[in-house]
Amino acid sequence: MFRKLSQIGEFGLIEEIRKRQSAAKDVIKGIGDDTAVVSFTQNKYLLLTTDMLMEDVHFTRSMSAQEIGHKALACNISDVAAMGGRAKYALVSLGVSAQLDVKFVTNIYRGINKLAQRFDVQIVGGDTVKSSKIVINIALTGEVEKKNLVARSGAKAGDQIFVTGKLGNSFQSGHHLRFMPRQQEAQLIVKYLKPSAMIDISDGLAADLGHIMKASKVGAILEEKKIPLRVNAKIKQALYEGEDFELLFTVPKRNLTTTALRFAQKNQFQLVGQICNQENGLMLLDSRQQHTKMPLKGFKHF
Amino acid sequence: MFRKLSQIGEFGLIEEIRKRQSAAKDVIKGIGDDTAVVSFTQNKYLLLTTDMLMEDVHFTRSMSAQEIGHKALACNISDVAAMGGRAKYALVSLGVSAQLDVKFVTNIYRGINKLAQRFDVQIVGGDTVKSSKIVINIALTGEVEKKNLVARSGAKAGDQIFVTGKLGNSFQSGHHLRFMPRQQEAQLIVKYLKPSAMIDISDGLAADLGHIMKASKVGAILEEKKIPLRVNAKIKQALYEGEDFELLFTVPKRNLTTTALRFAQKNQFQLVGQICNQENGLMLLDSRQQHTKMPLKGFKHF
Repeated sequence: MFRKLSQIGEFGLIEEIRKRQSAAKDVIKGIGDDTAVVSFTQNKYLLLTTDMLMEDVHFTRSMSAQEIGHKALACNISDVAAMGGRAKYALVSLGVSAQLDVKFVTNIYRGINKLAQRFDVQIVGGDTVKSSKIVINIALTGEVEKKNLVARSGAKAGDQIFVTGKLGNSFQSGHHLRFMPRQQEAQLIVKYLKPSAMIDISDGLAADLGHIMKASKVGAILEEKKIPLRVNAKIKQALYEGEDFELLFTVPKRNLTTTALRFAQKNQFQLVGQICNQENGLMLLDSRQQHTKMPLKGFKHF
Repeated sequence: MFRKLSQIGEFGLIEEIRKRQSAAKDVIKGIGDDTAVVSFTQNKYLLLTTDMLMEDVHFTRSMSAQEIGHKALACNISDVAAMGGRAKYALVSLGVSAQLDVKFVTNIYRGINKLAQRFDVQIVGGDTVKSSKIVINIALTGEVEKKNLVARSGAKAGDQIFVTGKLGNSFQSGHHLRFMPRQQEAQLIVKYLKPSAMIDISDGLAADLGHIMKASKVGAILEEKKIPLRVNAKIKQALYEGEDFELLFTVPKRNLTTTALRFAQKNQFQLVGQICNQENGLMLLDSRQQHTKMPLKGFKHF
């Protein structure tokens, strides 16, 4: 009765792991949100997250080494941003073949370091190992004021759903290699809109809204015509392809004062739908004003 | 003029990276010690470290998956221990093929989790990606009382050199897969011996003593007959093979009171030599009472 990973999928595997986890009182949030949240100082939590990028799965050698490095760190900063936090310290592990040009490797680091400088992230350590395929793992810590922490689990029926920026066509356009993590926007969102839930869109709008729905035990309605599309993007890409690394967040109606709405508009945060009761699942209100039940699928890792 | 990694080696690469690092005042120690050390609370520093293990480089599928998992975490705890700290939170990234048995993967996690429980480490997150070769990256945070921090850089001429446990034959004996990180011993060492420098032996006694020598700007004399050998180990293995994951530390003579020496003896901490001036380099006093200059080589990663 051995099962292969391809049969249970990444989320099945994560469930297998989670079952084996022990809960400690200093772990505010463990596996299952954008980052882990643990005790830190009186006013702050420590955030911890990690991402592994693999050659021929997430990138190829024909791409720009600098952009590959950029992306490896940017994904992690995006996760910290989605919790309302600020990225601080990074550990960079790199697996590379002994035959690889040093220039390719140093360009990966150049991409990482350039973004690190821009976001005031310190690269404090790492590891280098021999590997036939290039593999980059970045572990990032961040911190968040306790009052600013936003998880996936706080959305309530009636909350308005927003996204920053445009969605879809991220792979073909190269956006997934060049995006700037929305850390500054997240800070503004937390300050001025006080969102009830937030996540970054890595698996696709439908799947990531699904993560909020599951954690918050709610349903949601998306309005197709309101979903902001990237140039040449199709709605299906915006819904299911992912790698947009925009923020998806929910705001209680009472927070949406005239000032707040003006602020959202000025920053091009787009209202795309509304949270509803859990039994409704995820519905799409299409261009013909028809409601369709949507699958919660997204990018499949296995 | 492109250079290959095999030409410059891992430490060459680390130097390339270090050059690109920015120094921030909250980073007490960045790349170049067992762990990074950054600001935390009034009395404590935060420690950060990471290790990547690669199939067919560090392990093979014919080995026990549980032992592979054990080792992946144990290396990191050993690094935290060598700073005088305690391991706290771990992020586990795993690259695995979709064709791999779930049982192999869950056994890797079982090995990680069993050790984590024993050392009160919380697994708070991670990532899983597709990979033809199995790759495990663990990033670990720890904490250390400021007064207990031990780096590589504090050794002075005259300090006595100690190791915990026995050295050599780690690969063939399987010790490298099963070792228990010396965290508890490190806590005792810090408390009762107040070491001037400490490191864990991963690259071999000569190379890791070399790291202390370089960071502390000192030389050292090792006494061959005092080096404690594992069963069937040869002296060359103890000096150059590594993967022992014992602690190597230096203690100022004034700290070696009768009580301290009795404590060291009781815990089988073995005196193996003495720190001397930098111009002496690393010397071995062999069984014929001859001094030989030793190379600072160790395990070569590329």
